[in-house]
Amino acid sequence: MIGYQIYVRSFRDGNLDGVGDFRGLKNAVSYLKELGIDFVWLMPVFSSISFHGYDVVDFYSFKAEYGSVREFKEMLEAFHDSGIKVVLDLPIHHTGFLHTWFQKALKGDPHYRDYYVWANKETDLDERREWDGEKIWHPLEDGRFYRGLFGPFSPDLNYDNPQVFDEMKKLVLHLLDMGVDGFRFDAAKHMRDTIEQNVRFWKYFLSDLKGIFLAEIWAEARMVDEHGRIFGYMLNFDTSHCIKEAVWKENTRVLIESIERAVVGKDYLPVNFTSNHDMSRLASFEGGFSKEKIELSISILFTLPGVPLVFYGDELGMKGVYQKPNTEVVLDPFPWNENMCVEGQTFWKWPAYNGPFSGISVEYQKRNPDSILSHTMRWMRFRKENQWIDRAKIEFLRKEEKFLVYRLYGDQYSLKVFHNLSGEEVVFEGVKMKPYKTEVV
Amino acid sequence: MIGYQIYVRSFRDGNLDGVGDFRGLKNAVSYLKELGIDFVWLMPVFSSISFHGYDVVDFYSFKAEYGSVREFKEMLEAFHDSGIKVVLDLPIHHTGFLHTWFQKALKGDPHYRDYYVWANKETDLDERREWDGEKIWHPLEDGRFYRGLFGPFSPDLNYDNPQVFDEMKKLVLHLLDMGVDGFRFDAAKHMRDTIEQNVRFWKYFLSDLKGIFLAEIWAEARMVDEHGRIFGYMLNFDTSHCIKEAVWKENTRVLIESIERAVVGKDYLPVNFTSNHDMSRLASFEGGFSKEKIELSISILFTLPGVPLVFYGDELGMKGVYQKPNTEVVLDPFPWNENMCVEGQTFWKWPAYNGPFSGISVEYQKRNPDSILSHTMRWMRFRKENQWIDRAKIEFLRKEEKFLVYRLYGDQYSLKVFHNLSGEEVVFEGVKMKPYKTEVV
Repeated sequence: MIGYQIYVRSFRDGNLDGVGDFRGLKNAVSYLKELGIDFVWLMPVFSSISFHGYDVVDFYSFKAEYGSVREFKEMLEAFHDSGIKVVLDLPIHHTGFLHTWFQKALKGDPHYRDYYVWANKETDLDERREWDGEKIWHPLEDGRFYRGLFGPFSPDLNYDNPQVFDEMKKLVLHLLDMGVDGFRFDAAKHMRDTIEQNVRFWKYFLSDLKGIFLAEIWAEARMVDEHGRIFGYMLNFDTSHCIKEAVWKENTRVLIESIERAVVGKDYLPVNFTSNHDMSRLASFEGGFSKEKIELSISILFTLPGVPLVFYGDELGMKGVYQKPNTEVVLDPFPWNENMCVEGQTFWKWPAYNGPFSGISVEYQKRNPDSILSHTMRWMRFRKENQWIDRAKIEFLRKEEKFLVYRLYGDQYSLKVFHNLSGEEVVFEGVKMKPYKTEVV
Repeated sequence: MIGYQIYVRSFRDGNLDGVGDFRGLKNAVSYLKELGIDFVWLMPVFSSISFHGYDVVDFYSFKAEYGSVREFKEMLEAFHDSGIKVVLDLPIHHTGFLHTWFQKALKGDPHYRDYYVWANKETDLDERREWDGEKIWHPLEDGRFYRGLFGPFSPDLNYDNPQVFDEMKKLVLHLLDMGVDGFRFDAAKHMRDTIEQNVRFWKYFLSDLKGIFLAEIWAEARMVDEHGRIFGYMLNFDTSHCIKEAVWKENTRVLIESIERAVVGKDYLPVNFTSNHDMSRLASFEGGFSKEKIELSISILFTLPGVPLVFYGDELGMKGVYQKPNTEVVLDPFPWNENMCVEGQTFWKWPAYNGPFSGISVEYQKRNPDSILSHTMRWMRFRKENQWIDRAKIEFLRKEEKFLVYRLYGDQYSLKVFHNLSGEEVVFEGVKMKPYKTEVV
């Protein structure tokens, strides 16, 4: 199973306005099928005034620039016809400031007031969020304070209120009913106050539901594990980072430790990814990877148990250094051809890193067997032919500082993987490992 | 007459998707009316895959994210009901790469081949454009080269071909027929090879047409003058720049020279502007103006003969340092209120300079009589009450290094304008000029 994360606005345009949309996605199915993608994770597609869409204004309509409900359904059908599942990003931890519920709450409606979280006398209004020290409580002109963990634009929903729970369950059923295949739950670790409460929340929330449920639990392994058995799939931030750190340092240690901590012996599928919208792109890890190191990271990703997930454009080596608040710099238009002038090309902003004629376009790299894209496609094909690896067990055969050998095995199959993290050629058990290369035997 | 230049995507949203559109513009009429705007210049609204829209794909349809023909017409009607004229940016010097004409030309259609400019044996394929040394001729895979003065995305139309002339004349008649009040002609000095040919081109092109015709002739005064009598209005790059340079240097000389060169004794109306999409914003002139210098520049603009034109957001002191190729940094979302979370707010990207809670929003500045917006609105009101200044004559009464006095006069009216470009108080003829202030007597 191979996943692919898409920022719709940047991916493919279907109506010649330069903004990615559902019609464009439909036209991109052939590319995704060629890659061998099993599911796409679409970043938020619901009505919202932000470019990223994580502050939803209406969960029952789509971003106008992405298209209509009819176009959404046609897109869904086209994906399904090609055997690709569609997973929607669902930011239900909060709503947008302009959501009718919050607007009604602001105007004093007691029903919708309880949909959100308000400060009381005991509240520490100076409370800060752990990861960057920003304030959590935001003032209104009338003296009230509301909770907005991700800033004043996105007031937190009150999941103590069973009506909010019911509203969101209704939404999820509605979307599944439309044919959506699953969800990536944004900010999934922040629904309730304690881990135990949070796990219980998701247990109730997902009970009786079938689909691909990816949780964003960006936390230590224990917390991920506790949620894992409920979701079935967990975004594995730990190993996704450690693959790159190991390649960067040319040292296997962090990778081995991470595999042992976050991949081995889980009762869920770890989803290992190249990068995502909340960090620098694979090609820009720690300021920039060489072509060899980009390719080695991809090779490692595709030879680990779990689900490999590619952030759109990472298969091309698109660059992007994450920076706040201009986070759209990692969301450059996906370059379909070299001059970036072809039907389907998006151009809603000038590319921050990946402009025309930079040699990274699909068209250019497809013609070149030595390209990062061709490299990635070879590994995707390998993985497609060895689907058993998703749930394979792993046994380390050799843990050297600069090289690593492990056996992947299932009930019927087995193979040996050799990673050489150094710039030197290494020979082990008769297998020649070229510099920065992976060999599978 | 007061003009206002609008980048539609950034101005006002009408359907809660965060992208500015025609419906949003319609809702913004009250604000523009309050300012006292007589005409708006809308940056390109036609189908195009770029964010800026200067490479048009179809002149007979609008950018999908901006809205439908019906919505365009409703917007037009709303402006007209408020007495505001609508001037469209018309980039007819070239088309977009994806325009049907060019696509047909690429495929060998002889009719449309002649719509564009192709290299022949005598062509110097290494020809560079004067202003930045970029190449003008672009290769195709089949060995042909086409001319694209503004880059490979935008092939130049061949105005030697009378069919192209007729096509564009037809377009202009169609738009005027729809109710559009005029055009800002992009790249107007580049239609033909010599000044004489170019002037003749526009003479024929505009003959029999009525409307507001603004020409972009970014060139020395003589060239501007030669086109002036045909267009009636000319964007005055010269004085627009020199106002800011004089304020920056605290020295009147460049301003006086520019007025004598580019304002005095013209048979057309010079259109003097705060800044535009091709340069740093007024507030970011030479790295950044103080509030006093922003306000002084605005005061000078509104006390000169000709038509004052405000680039959206310059009335708020929005910041923006022009940089290539990321030119969208001067096209930040227009901030309607402080948290930038209000119906109508656009958010198609994160603001490069003018984020939430930066004290520049309309809502915030309207409440504050000392704000840049309040200052600008006072001058707009003054100008509205003294429309004769558009065509006033000017007589310099005192040319000092740091201060300047001139008389504006028409057949019936006359007034004296005192500008103090220094940080010191100056008294002249009993009139006290505060530091960095303008007085009108």
